[in-house]
Amino acid sequence: MSYFVLRLDSRKLHSAVRLLPLREPRWGQIPFLSSNRFMSQEKVPPLTAERYRVSRLPFSEVSVEDIRHFQKIIPGRVITDESDLKAHNIDWLRTVRGHSKVLLKPRTTEEVSKILKHCNERGLAVTPQGGNTGLVGGSVPVFDEILISTALMDQVISFDDVSGALVCQAGCVLDSLNQYLAELGYTMPLDLGAKGSCHIGGNLATNAGGLRLLRYGSLRGTVLGLEAVLPDGSILDCLNSLRKDNTGYDLKQLFIGSEGTLGIITALSIMCPRKPSAVNVALLGCENFSKVLQVFTLCRDQLGEILSACEFMDSESMRIVQTHLKLINPLPDNAFYVLVETSGSCGKHDEEKLNIFLEKAMDSGFVTSGTVATDQGKIMSLWGLRERITEALALDGYVYKYDLSMPVEKLYALVEETRVRLGSSAQCVVGYGHLGDGNLHLNVTAKSHSDALLSALEPFVYEWTSKHNGSISAEHGLGFKKRDHIYYSKSAGAVHIMQQLKHMLDPKGIMNPYKTIPSTD
Amino acid sequence: MSYFVLRLDSRKLHSAVRLLPLREPRWGQIPFLSSNRFMSQEKVPPLTAERYRVSRLPFSEVSVEDIRHFQKIIPGRVITDESDLKAHNIDWLRTVRGHSKVLLKPRTTEEVSKILKHCNERGLAVTPQGGNTGLVGGSVPVFDEILISTALMDQVISFDDVSGALVCQAGCVLDSLNQYLAELGYTMPLDLGAKGSCHIGGNLATNAGGLRLLRYGSLRGTVLGLEAVLPDGSILDCLNSLRKDNTGYDLKQLFIGSEGTLGIITALSIMCPRKPSAVNVALLGCENFSKVLQVFTLCRDQLGEILSACEFMDSESMRIVQTHLKLINPLPDNAFYVLVETSGSCGKHDEEKLNIFLEKAMDSGFVTSGTVATDQGKIMSLWGLRERITEALALDGYVYKYDLSMPVEKLYALVEETRVRLGSSAQCVVGYGHLGDGNLHLNVTAKSHSDALLSALEPFVYEWTSKHNGSISAEHGLGFKKRDHIYYSKSAGAVHIMQQLKHMLDPKGIMNPYKTIPSTD
Repeated sequence: MSYFVLRLDSRKLHSAVRLLPLREPRWGQIPFLSSNRFMSQEKVPPLTAERYRVSRLPFSEVSVEDIRHFQKIIPGRVITDESDLKAHNIDWLRTVRGHSKVLLKPRTTEEVSKILKHCNERGLAVTPQGGNTGLVGGSVPVFDEILISTALMDQVISFDDVSGALVCQAGCVLDSLNQYLAELGYTMPLDLGAKGSCHIGGNLATNAGGLRLLRYGSLRGTVLGLEAVLPDGSILDCLNSLRKDNTGYDLKQLFIGSEGTLGIITALSIMCPRKPSAVNVALLGCENFSKVLQVFTLCRDQLGEILSACEFMDSESMRIVQTHLKLINPLPDNAFYVLVETSGSCGKHDEEKLNIFLEKAMDSGFVTSGTVATDQGKIMSLWGLRERITEALALDGYVYKYDLSMPVEKLYALVEETRVRLGSSAQCVVGYGHLGDGNLHLNVTAKSHSDALLSALEPFVYEWTSKHNGSISAEHGLGFKKRDHIYYSKSAGAVHIMQQLKHMLDPKGIMNPYKTIPSTD
Repeated sequence: MSYFVLRLDSRKLHSAVRLLPLREPRWGQIPFLSSNRFMSQEKVPPLTAERYRVSRLPFSEVSVEDIRHFQKIIPGRVITDESDLKAHNIDWLRTVRGHSKVLLKPRTTEEVSKILKHCNERGLAVTPQGGNTGLVGGSVPVFDEILISTALMDQVISFDDVSGALVCQAGCVLDSLNQYLAELGYTMPLDLGAKGSCHIGGNLATNAGGLRLLRYGSLRGTVLGLEAVLPDGSILDCLNSLRKDNTGYDLKQLFIGSEGTLGIITALSIMCPRKPSAVNVALLGCENFSKVLQVFTLCRDQLGEILSACEFMDSESMRIVQTHLKLINPLPDNAFYVLVETSGSCGKHDEEKLNIFLEKAMDSGFVTSGTVATDQGKIMSLWGLRERITEALALDGYVYKYDLSMPVEKLYALVEETRVRLGSSAQCVVGYGHLGDGNLHLNVTAKSHSDALLSALEPFVYEWTSKHNGSISAEHGLGFKKRDHIYYSKSAGAVHIMQQLKHMLDPKGIMNPYKTIPSTD
């Protein structure tokens, strides 16, 4: 126990939100705007249709008349220039690429409605796109689907500072909403690494989980209402702001997590918690994964209602953020690291609880080193180590990404088995994730995409997960890449009902085709 | 400030769960088992078909062959004796009455499957029934629908004491689950007055809200998985226990709140929180509703993450539990009462927070009197005043029940307007409910049912609620009684999609007909 830095003090933090300073590159923008490595030609992936050998469905092709029609609906906001379209045709990870010829930027629900009505009548396929930070190829076209971006739908509609209900358009950037709310003493109930770029509508469409789920629960509970445009252009208004409403089936749930396959979410209402007045973050080092689990159980018991995050990362994750992002590990090298965050309404009480937890963790030998942060700068630095792993991986090479949930005791065994299985054919195998949610991010990097490596990984990873009653997509969704693996986590009967739902709401199948739900053909 | 009783002490409560002692009559059982007033002939309501002038749909009638078939599936558990059926044909409030000829008591999912398959093939309508504690006539037949009771499906399947995931059959009584979990250091994430009788499957089917929603969120977030039998007898298995699972559309959400109209929930998995080690309850008296709102805002700010309930009741609610249940009000008479509960992991911290809150509430003149309980007996007594209002109302006469959500500032204005509007034609007009959820229970009693009184109440109450963007059913559901009022809270487009969903999963319409979703005819 040579290196335990305790820096708790009694100052309350008045702003507990981890705002990224503007000069810092934001996650999601780096590949296209900030890093030359990503702009080089060899990092442009092959066309999805070629790499994955998919066939185009018989949708219409966009015509000059269609473009003219769109120009009438949203004059000046119909993008057809190939260089402008490039970034929208490729996913953030640079693993899939479509060749859409047109990007539409509506500002209002009515414009989205007119666009979809036309597309549906003409049999034109569409791909909705938010911040394009998705990790399963869900937000880029597979072929020439028309891109409908929510980028200009970025207005806050209302905020009720008694109930905490925020109503806004789908294109608001998550971090911008957080900044807006911080001034009013509130915070968003979700947080994730991509917050600087991702759109709240996209968060809903993918049922994003992230870093605060442990504390505030999932979007299925915090979203109060939404508005969506259906494929035929009709507007479904379920945009209420009530905490309780049991009048009929809860239609908004259909759209949460449907990944743009049933319609386009245009606005939403979400319940925002009070911004906690005190936040503490501890980074702890552990010798092995069984001690990680002991730390998890201990912090849940000791920190109770103030525990707001419990994340873990392995030494490879730490190595990769040090190597590619030059981040500094404040602890000596450890096999594992656990990041524990508390958020509460009374700094003094939280510190007492945290101190008791830390003392017990040390006395029991669960942790070998640790550091605690109460000021915003240090909190941000510690969170950066965990939040920016995804970014560091993207800089390491081609990334094979798995986002799995399973009983927490099993989380790391899969990483170890994968490492042994792949041997030297992988550049790097890392495991990290949300302990509190039983959610593992298993990532494998290699110099470039290889069918052989993919075959070594799949179906191995999915079968392993399924055997342990896990989910093959905990929070990323299925998108294009995982669609046909749905059966590892869902019964044929369940998938059949999903197909019926899809057909019911989108009989022509124009909404984000080739994604999420296996085709019935 | 003549009567402020502060009895905080530093003892931690080891069992914080409000268990009803076995000798105490349980809510839900009283009308049929404990009170002669309810057994008298005049309290049997007229047949629903007559009072509400509805026409039977052309379903088949149950035949001797059907009964014989059911006997083969569940020998000895086919109830046809009229006196045994009586309690199941009448709702708890004694306001609706069907005339089902047969009650089936399956024990397993497979039995439910065989029963529904037969009913679907034969065109026999069915009504699923849990504890029959519903308040909108959703759990009793309207005509001769076959009753399928979950009473014998009462087994806990598994409990994971690392994740807190409980898997059980649908017929488990909520309070029994609470008792089971209490011994393991956990608690159910929902609690409601009917806990001694209601089935957890019925809670899901009605998306029950209740007393802990403020703290643990709604069932849409805490239910991890469910199993349901569809009308054609097929079994939909979505019974996973993962906190995160984004593989396709979240089908379980369709069944939560569908009130038995899409299938029968047979089992479920639910995430249970740790039982709090410290619980405190304060009952506070306020002079007017604007002070009630000030108390609410203050307790939310001061108690933060330990606030677990914030309920209010008016003086009429207090009068009625005193009159009919002989409960004792520990405070001098007040116009309003607020019940505040804290639950936390550290008794000392919670008491400090509660003391600061109470001092501020007194110093600001928001409350005129109050009492605090930390021991289980007194906590139960204070909760009894609030929880047993429903029961007291049922003893007062015929009850017109409204369960509304709206912006919290508006909650009581409707009660006052209703009181003025009805004048002496009502026996009693009471308002109480869940402040934290913006949920008002407006109840009107009269000697007996009267069309004139009903006309004075409806559509007035619904129009008023709709005008203030509220929901005409916050947590009770629509059932039989509120079905056609859905349009006050939902758009025609939304209702149309609900009708399509109903038709998709239940094309013959056999599942709990005449309920929840307006017919398309």
